[in-house]
Amino acid sequence: MTRTVDLNADMGESFGPWNMGNDAALLKLVSSANIACGFHAGDPDTMARTMDLALAAGVALGAHPGFADLQGFGRRRIDLSAAEVTHLIQYQLGAAMALAQARGARLSHFKLHGALANMAAKDTALATTCFRAALAVQPDLRLTIMPLTAHQAAATALDASWSAEIFADRAYDDDGTLTDRAQPDAMISDPDMAAARIVDMLNNGGITTRSGRLLACPIDTICVHGDNAGALAIAGRLAAALHDAGYTVAAPDRSDPTRGP
Amino acid sequence: MTRTVDLNADMGESFGPWNMGNDAALLKLVSSANIACGFHAGDPDTMARTMDLALAAGVALGAHPGFADLQGFGRRRIDLSAAEVTHLIQYQLGAAMALAQARGARLSHFKLHGALANMAAKDTALATTCFRAALAVQPDLRLTIMPLTAHQAAATALDASWSAEIFADRAYDDDGTLTDRAQPDAMISDPDMAAARIVDMLNNGGITTRSGRLLACPIDTICVHGDNAGALAIAGRLAAALHDAGYTVAAPDRSDPTRGP
Amino acid sequence: MTRTVDLNADMGESFGPWNMGNDAALLKLVSSANIACGFHAGDPDTMARTMDLALAAGVALGAHPGFADLQGFGRRRIDLSAAEVTHLIQYQLGAAMALAQARGARLSHFKLHGALANMAAKDTALATTCFRAALAVQPDLRLTIMPLTAHQAAATALDASWSAEIFADRAYDDDGTLTDRAQPDAMISDPDMAAARIVDMLNNGGITTRSGRLLACPIDTICVHGDNAGALAIAGRLAAALHDAGYTVAAPDRSDPTRGP
Amino acid sequence: MTRTVDLNADMGESFGPWNMGNDAALLKLVSSANIACGFHAGDPDTMARTMDLALAAGVALGAHPGFADLQGFGRRRIDLSAAEVTHLIQYQLGAAMALAQARGARLSHFKLHGALANMAAKDTALATTCFRAALAVQPDLRLTIMPLTAHQAAATALDASWSAEIFADRAYDDDGTLTDRAQPDAMISDPDMAAARIVDMLNNGGITTRSGRLLACPIDTICVHGDNAGALAIAGRLAAALHDAGYTVAAPDRSDPTRGP
Repeated sequence: MTRTVDLNADMGESFGPWNMGNDAALLKLVSSANIACGFHAGDPDTMARTMDLALAAGVALGAHPGFADLQGFGRRRIDLSAAEVTHLIQYQLGAAMALAQARGARLSHFKLHGALANMAAKDTALATTCFRAALAVQPDLRLTIMPLTAHQAAATALDASWSAEIFADRAYDDDGTLTDRAQPDAMISDPDMAAARIVDMLNNGGITTRSGRLLACPIDTICVHGDNAGALAIAGRLAAALHDAGYTVAAPDRSDPTRGP
Repeated sequence: MTRTVDLNADMGESFGPWNMGNDAALLKLVSSANIACGFHAGDPDTMARTMDLALAAGVALGAHPGFADLQGFGRRRIDLSAAEVTHLIQYQLGAAMALAQARGARLSHFKLHGALANMAAKDTALATTCFRAALAVQPDLRLTIMPLTAHQAAATALDASWSAEIFADRAYDDDGTLTDRAQPDAMISDPDMAAARIVDMLNNGGITTRSGRLLACPIDTICVHGDNAGALAIAGRLAAALHDAGYTVAAPDRSDPTRGP
Repeated sequence: MTRTVDLNADMGESFGPWNMGNDAALLKLVSSANIACGFHAGDPDTMARTMDLALAAGVALGAHPGFADLQGFGRRRIDLSAAEVTHLIQYQLGAAMALAQARGARLSHFKLHGALANMAAKDTALATTCFRAALAVQPDLRLTIMPLTAHQAAATALDASWSAEIFADRAYDDDGTLTDRAQPDAMISDPDMAAARIVDMLNNGGITTRSGRLLACPIDTICVHGDNAGALAIAGRLAAALHDAGYTVAAPDRSDPTRGP
Repeated sequence: MTRTVDLNADMGESFGPWNMGNDAALLKLVSSANIACGFHAGDPDTMARTMDLALAAGVALGAHPGFADLQGFGRRRIDLSAAEVTHLIQYQLGAAMALAQARGARLSHFKLHGALANMAAKDTALATTCFRAALAVQPDLRLTIMPLTAHQAAATALDASWSAEIFADRAYDDDGTLTDRAQPDAMISDPDMAAARIVDMLNNGGITTRSGRLLACPIDTICVHGDNAGALAIAGRLAAALHDAGYTVAAPDRSDPTRGP
């Protein structure tokens, strides 16, 4: 029996003359690329170039919108009205859809970035606004959500297709949220440990927290990073470990029936 | 026999707290709205609000992209590569398409703005790049073009659907280009004169130049402005004169066969 | 005996092609101009043009920095570190100083804009960061502060020169803060009432609140607006009423000894 | 006898989350740092951080303004009026002056960036506008200029203090301009060759062109880069070669009498 899991990475986060990350290396490992849409990172040329690379690698394309804050990389909280959030998302999503369409492709998924994602994880109304905005433009988008958060509640209530995401290099607290980066053991830096931990979570059907507790939840996709050698090493080790454990790395089939809780 | 002509106006050119133009007044007169797409003017909220107004008024929506130059309002020349122009246009067009889609609407047309439009009017390769970029995203977009310029050559060679546009308040030179604004008689400010002149051009099937010459060309749409009382007076007087002369103001039917020269 | 009071207005809030306010009309009335510095409004050309107008009118120049948020006009809260706030302010202040210097002028005062001003009114540490940042660049700047708020505490602790500002068209609550705009009587729109109220406050040496209470505090400068006919009418009526009541409208003399509480 | 020459490098070209260059490594080698001012690169935080590093290393601070074009890194031509160029430069220069002042420092020099520098090298009126704008704000700034170009003519006519700059890694044509990067031998990549060539030019009192011709001109400062390992190797080898040849690397003394041709 073959089980399938998605590996995703945030990509296209360069801007103008500035490079960020190592998209080419990551694209050999992942099955889904979350493309920055020009507001917190990326620009039309970077988006196009990243999509070309992803399509050549057979990797699924997703929109990864964030706040309009290049200098802060979308990591600073900005209070917006529901209407402003709706337009912010639809604008960026549409831009990504058009660049995909121009290369004969379609977006498969949608993932919130940075402060917007974190705010929505704790605010079902905001998560609902974000997801509804996206689905009003492309109804079959698969939403990449953080399980056990307001993301999941909002996506489920909208009867949307969604993928539950965990992070390869981050520890979890007992409430299912990511351990604050200020904590000493918030980041998993050892590739072997990171890979083994993720395989365990997949096998166990839930998130293992720092305290050793298991929080049962769906796990459909694993986020890896490529912004330094250590991150790439984790991604590579994880891909190998998944293979060894009998998992096939692949993007979810969009024709699948809607995921329910 | 009823003849039909389109009246178009550039709209949604406000930005954040700054208002520009009088879209509400213009929407009572025109049949097509060219919506700024956030790079030279407009922002996601302004775009959404303008589309809502236009749809309520039964006015056709078009994308009106320009250079990424808010301070210069897209009126300053920027030298970009063909790839950069392509992505610039597709990004903005996609953003507008998504905001339209979110309100159950579709874009009907596409018109270049400012310096990009003027540069493309003299450069068939650039015009071709712009139009091809747009059509790769939405193939049935009707291109609003300046007749007798490289716009028309490019649109025709692409076998695209297009509308030839003349300006209600601008004089023309004998080569079919707009008289330079530095010339004393470049602008038509008298509403009666502007209206009579346009009706004559429609009846005569071509542009009447400052010297009195007639340049035969298609005329499908007339651009009016609303940025001051004088401009609005011209638009109002023109709409009345067209009615009196037996013309119906309406956007072209997208189901029409492709316009040929 | 002649008593002196300053009238100030926020100016130079246009951006690129977009106009805001009526600076020319206001400059006939006020003694101090707070110049937007390009982050929430204004651009280098608008700043230069506004300074030229203010200098021709004999009006004192001040820097009016805000958050880097053109679309939100600096009215949206953005959480920044103390270092980020420091650099944000010094950058904008220096830009304004240079444009003043290029026309043989010097800045006389400094006033925070929008959300940054409001956040600092409730946060002494933030107010101290803002004011210290400015004074590190030009130590003799007079700080325009909201009396009875953290602004006053911070400016006093820094032993800075400051001017206490009240608003001609806004009601006050009993804690000395501005009545929320959502309240029905938050705005004073009748010019006669606004003018009489301000003269009373000056004569009484304090702010009169909505409930009729008098909050004793220094009052050195009165902020007027010019963004619509009503605002200009208030400014004009207030200037006349101040004259009738024996006040001279003038900017504070920078050679004055430091204001203490 | 000790001869002195300046080594300069463009720095502070990171933006928000994006890093560019290796300022820390360069600061061990150079005597002058040209700090990007936030329009084509840099932001207030990056500027402050770079100045802190430069001051700790005893390196002279200069302003390095460019066009307002982050995505294009200031390398795209933008046509501006003389007034617009003046304000663009004064705004950026003032921002840099303020950040220097806040750390008890003063700018020593001024160097144009990218397309603006290249356009000014061929246009004496533009170069004069740029330099006059800067000197109106800080009259004792030393202008870093490209010798034998309109830069030198403008700086000389303004009776300004200036330093003539050559590039360590670029070939020159017989007219004194940099060989176009499209030419195969436009870049000097061998550290030994680059270093020997520069020492020869200093000893010979002029630029040696690709064809072997010597163009007599002043040489006061040499520009090195640090954006990759090769560039850093050239900078390091050049610093060593200058020492071996009896040169002291130091920024020009601002108290020197004005340089004349």
